[in-house]
Amino acid sequence: MREVAIVGIGYTKIGELWERSLRDLFVEASLRALEDAGIDDVDALYVGNMMSGTLQEQEHLGALLAGYIGHPGIAAAKIEAACASGGVSLHQAYMAVASGLYDVVLAGGVEKMTDRLTPDVTFSLAMADDMEYTIYSGVTFVGLNALVYRLYMHKYGVKQEDIANFAVLMHENAVNTPHARFRRRVKLEDVLRSPLIADPIHLLECAPISDGAAVLVLTTLERAKKLTDTPIVIRASAVATDYLSIYERDDMLSLRATVLASRKAYKQAKLEPKDINVLEVHDAFTILGILALEDLGFAERGRGAVLVKEGEIAPDGRVPTNTMGGLKARGHPVGATGIYQAIDAILQLRGDAGKNQVPNAENALLQSTGGVGGTVAIHILSRAD
Amino acid sequence: MREVAIVGIGYTKIGELWERSLRDLFVEASLRALEDAGIDDVDALYVGNMMSGTLQEQEHLGALLAGYIGHPGIAAAKIEAACASGGVSLHQAYMAVASGLYDVVLAGGVEKMTDRLTPDVTFSLAMADDMEYTIYSGVTFVGLNALVYRLYMHKYGVKQEDIANFAVLMHENAVNTPHARFRRRVKLEDVLRSPLIADPIHLLECAPISDGAAVLVLTTLERAKKLTDTPIVIRASAVATDYLSIYERDDMLSLRATVLASRKAYKQAKLEPKDINVLEVHDAFTILGILALEDLGFAERGRGAVLVKEGEIAPDGRVPTNTMGGLKARGHPVGATGIYQAIDAILQLRGDAGKNQVPNAENALLQSTGGVGGTVAIHILSRAD
Repeated sequence: MREVAIVGIGYTKIGELWERSLRDLFVEASLRALEDAGIDDVDALYVGNMMSGTLQEQEHLGALLAGYIGHPGIAAAKIEAACASGGVSLHQAYMAVASGLYDVVLAGGVEKMTDRLTPDVTFSLAMADDMEYTIYSGVTFVGLNALVYRLYMHKYGVKQEDIANFAVLMHENAVNTPHARFRRRVKLEDVLRSPLIADPIHLLECAPISDGAAVLVLTTLERAKKLTDTPIVIRASAVATDYLSIYERDDMLSLRATVLASRKAYKQAKLEPKDINVLEVHDAFTILGILALEDLGFAERGRGAVLVKEGEIAPDGRVPTNTMGGLKARGHPVGATGIYQAIDAILQLRGDAGKNQVPNAENALLQSTGGVGGTVAIHILSRAD
Repeated sequence: MREVAIVGIGYTKIGELWERSLRDLFVEASLRALEDAGIDDVDALYVGNMMSGTLQEQEHLGALLAGYIGHPGIAAAKIEAACASGGVSLHQAYMAVASGLYDVVLAGGVEKMTDRLTPDVTFSLAMADDMEYTIYSGVTFVGLNALVYRLYMHKYGVKQEDIANFAVLMHENAVNTPHARFRRRVKLEDVLRSPLIADPIHLLECAPISDGAAVLVLTTLERAKKLTDTPIVIRASAVATDYLSIYERDDMLSLRATVLASRKAYKQAKLEPKDINVLEVHDAFTILGILALEDLGFAERGRGAVLVKEGEIAPDGRVPTNTMGGLKARGHPVGATGIYQAIDAILQLRGDAGKNQVPNAENALLQSTGGVGGTVAIHILSRAD
């Protein structure tokens, strides 16, 4: 396999971008990424997206967007793996270059969620879980995460304050992130007083419905070294799955797909959790952020919240996590989220992370999660020194 | 790159399968494919599907179906490229094995179309073209193909009878195909007297709305030789795109994506049109079958219909085409169609094609088309002697 590197990043601000369409957002992110890379010869495009069919009544995004970015003719496809669509899109792009079939590949993601009424979006998001056997019973997607949350507190004797703290830190980190959806602080009491969405999950513990697009330019490490002084190597790229619905699993408090994919990734990269300086976890709900810290090997089971409380996941802590605000505060445009995670990590690895810069960031691990852990894509990125 | 081979095929009968769900169909096809291959260690799964979001209100098919086929944990994703989803799924699976990252990969496709009302399905199919700028103007997907059809007759002075003949041959071929949707003959006058769907396209020139699932098992050629006496090598795998809507193109009478992808494929396989013994073209409408014969290099521009008239594309002709009935008569369960094309070709290459067997079939070319040629995947398969 050829070694693969990322040489360009492009992204839009995340928000309620009513004045621009899905294709507008994707074009902006793509052209910025190609400009950042300083190249324009593209061989293939992968578009991570979950809901364009139900929210925009548009499929065939691969060819559509290939044309709109000025590259009609290239190979293209839409990659769908629920909220992990972005991470899996990166995985496909990685293989496309690693295989030797394509030299320059765009790994993109886009989601346009705010043009539709919230019930439509909530329903579309629930397509990430098993509609026939789980969702039609009446539970919402937030409701499923609420079950996990409550069981976690019960089993480990953890207080909600300690879990909800995760959201407070995310907002703190987003204050310094120009592309973040929410650049404002919240206090723990704000989180706990915000409306209950599905008991015990409060509004401010949920990632916001957002619009956004993000794109990476991948090529061989060999070519990357000629293009830039700061190529970012993809040291590992792994995907794993699990039964879609939590009732089918042996253990509701560990996402097996995270464990499987991260194990493969650590092995591929020949790295361990202690080698990771920058972490991006999929905190669609605070509880998922806590579980990720445990499943990825950064905390013992039931002890993830302790890392948050002790400041270990802050930008100046031992395991800087979601330093740009994560899904919670940077925002969660579903199909693009996995790519934004890569971008936030790359800004750190390049030393371009501004006030939240982690000193000497060398290795970053990204966890992109679909549904309640039905699919997890793990990537490990490193500075190519 | 590692050489890649197909060692197992599995598929359902195509039809109005109201008694079975999307997942039932996919499980049946997958288990048959694994049984045919004689292995059960799967590393990754790609599911070609276009419309599960709008027709089944279900996404995240990769993980969902990985679990249902008894392989929770493996890497999985849904691949969407409109009606080329199956062909592109095969392309992704090919790269997954070729890259060295995965050893055994399932390339699958599934579509469940007949549970919904026809207007819903017609609308969902139109998502293959540009909704905002083309479909919302009032044209249907059939209507777009009708424009191409009329221009073709006008420019080349070809009569409708000669184009409609394609459907007659497809029905003839399907009579001997156990898994075909329509195992009955039609006469040319039946086709021309069938209802007009979009002038000049008659009902019997359109591929039928269908349910079905099909799966291939891919592994390295090295391992394939140990598993079976009839491994099928993937000699070429290529994908190309074009502007989604015909009004954006320089030439409405040639699918540029077919030309680009087939050129890449012939080069990769070191083969020419004259080396192809079995051809599978994407005849969603008769006119698309004719255009394919020209764009793939089997006929001069404007002369595709002559091949049909002269019997050249019949199973005993010079370029046996869609020997199992093609999209028109075998059926067109959208996301699965590209995989069914591979299966029909493999039955020929294995010598298992029954009454329609092409003598000494060695090389097969498959064309999987999305929309009116927005995406085209081309594969060349050969017997590994």
